[in-house]
Amino acid sequence: MDLRMDRAALDAFVQAELPQLRDDVSIARVAPMALDLRLHVGAGHLRPGGTVSGPAMFALADVAFYLALLAMIGPQALAVTTNAAIDFMRKPAAGVDLRAEARILKLGRVLAVGDVLVFSDGAAAPVARAGLTYSIPPLRA
Amino acid sequence: MDLRMDRAALDAFVQAELPQLRDDVSIARVAPMALDLRLHVGAGHLRPGGTVSGPAMFALADVAFYLALLAMIGPQALAVTTNAAIDFMRKPAAGVDLRAEARILKLGRVLAVGDVLVFSDGAAAPVARAGLTYSIPPLRA
Amino acid sequence: MDLRMDRAALDAFVQAELPQLRDDVSIARVAPMALDLRLHVGAGHLRPGGTVSGPAMFALADVAFYLALLAMIGPQALAVTTNAAIDFMRKPAAGVDLRAEARILKLGRVLAVGDVLVFSDGAAAPVARAGLTYSIPPLRA
Amino acid sequence: MDLRMDRAALDAFVQAELPQLRDDVSIARVAPMALDLRLHVGAGHLRPGGTVSGPAMFALADVAFYLALLAMIGPQALAVTTNAAIDFMRKPAAGVDLRAEARILKLGRVLAVGDVLVFSDGAAAPVARAGLTYSIPPLRA
Repeated sequence: MDLRMDRAALDAFVQAELPQLRDDVSIARVAPMALDLRLHVGAGHLRPGGTVSGPAMFALADVAFYLALLAMIGPQALAVTTNAAIDFMRKPAAGVDLRAEARILKLGRVLAVGDVLVFSDGAAAPVARAGLTYSIPPLRA
Repeated sequence: MDLRMDRAALDAFVQAELPQLRDDVSIARVAPMALDLRLHVGAGHLRPGGTVSGPAMFALADVAFYLALLAMIGPQALAVTTNAAIDFMRKPAAGVDLRAEARILKLGRVLAVGDVLVFSDGAAAPVARAGLTYSIPPLRA
Repeated sequence: MDLRMDRAALDAFVQAELPQLRDDVSIARVAPMALDLRLHVGAGHLRPGGTVSGPAMFALADVAFYLALLAMIGPQALAVTTNAAIDFMRKPAAGVDLRAEARILKLGRVLAVGDVLVFSDGAAAPVARAGLTYSIPPLRA
Repeated sequence: MDLRMDRAALDAFVQAELPQLRDDVSIARVAPMALDLRLHVGAGHLRPGGTVSGPAMFALADVAFYLALLAMIGPQALAVTTNAAIDFMRKPAAGVDLRAEARILKLGRVLAVGDVLVFSDGAAAPVARAGLTYSIPPLRA
């Protein structure tokens, strides 16, 4: 399986299409059906208590899977999440970046399904896991 | 069932503890086991295509349920989401606020479970639905 | 919105197509976008401890939504579940039937999304809730 | 991490406590935090169209995780599923057994969280994936 977008192409896509994220995330690895994404944790990601908020972890998992999908299908910005289920298992370490490991388990014509593990940088036990489904828009003729 | 926090108390909590949200959300209704929350949609909530992003809808559902829970148990800031499952069903209307309707289906000693429907303001069909579980921290002695 | 199948038509479908369920479930109510289904609890539905098992509640929620969908689209046996998220909230009462209340929140051309509440008969607080997505097969020409 | 129950002990538990499953499943592998379980597909597991039903796959994933958990904590029959989210990705092959691979991602004092991949025997691409949370009952004194 070949990649339709490599890391440089995905980086350019984030800069152009996801401006609110471009200072927050960086792509650590791209491979067929898999992508690792880092979140540079800032004040806007924190919740009462000082650790990364659930919505920030959700956003990280969601965009990691989105970029893993775009790597396979090309820059179809209008692919959308139809379903996500996320378990928050541990409190992230304070003051440490997060790393999301996304994999695609099914890449169909209209739906893509996969999951994501989220880790505090340097830790072996995940802080969260998510299952995600994306709807792939029909190609423009 | 009595409320431990009314709308004024919840508003004050949002101001003090959730500063990144205080300009974005407003509480529309509080009742036993139920709360409605509005999201004032801004540029930071949008995704490619111009509608509200999935993570922004997730964050709205999550905080709506959190506030519904705090209304029942008091200002326990450290209650945390342990699980969330969300279906994104329709594209939100552009340029329109969102309204989340949260209800608590089980309020246990250590876990609270419920669901949230999210609507574009003025529309009858929901744009998203979520099931959420929160873990309630033990009371300080 | 008209029903394509009424209770009698759905009962006949269950008899013909779902033989393993026909002695276990009965349709209590059919309405546009909603259906209530009862499970007659038997020994095969129980888990250690004597209450209804999780998989039996899952099966009830799944078939309730399936029948709610068929009522709207007609007897398309090959509609399939693509995603389900279920919260088990309370132990069902022993020796009591279960009642599932399914509603369809989105009925699209290829996907249907909705949720189900499951109750022990006579109780007001639900024992489980589920969100479900079904894929609707293309019509044969 | 040591196992509290090995394969022989788990087999005996299934025989004694899960009689409705004892002819259907067999434990293929037990390891710390992981267990593989096979489902011997029979007529009772099929849906219209002749492939394994969603509820049968759910039951397989649920019991695989349950046994993975018991291997770690011992024969606490009253551990219960509190949440499950399952994606059905492909039609299982007809006339072929299923294999579930369960792993525990968090084993806490009161909650255990993990996921399960389900495969048609001999196939590399999973037919389903599930995230599961179990509640662990307090130990009897």
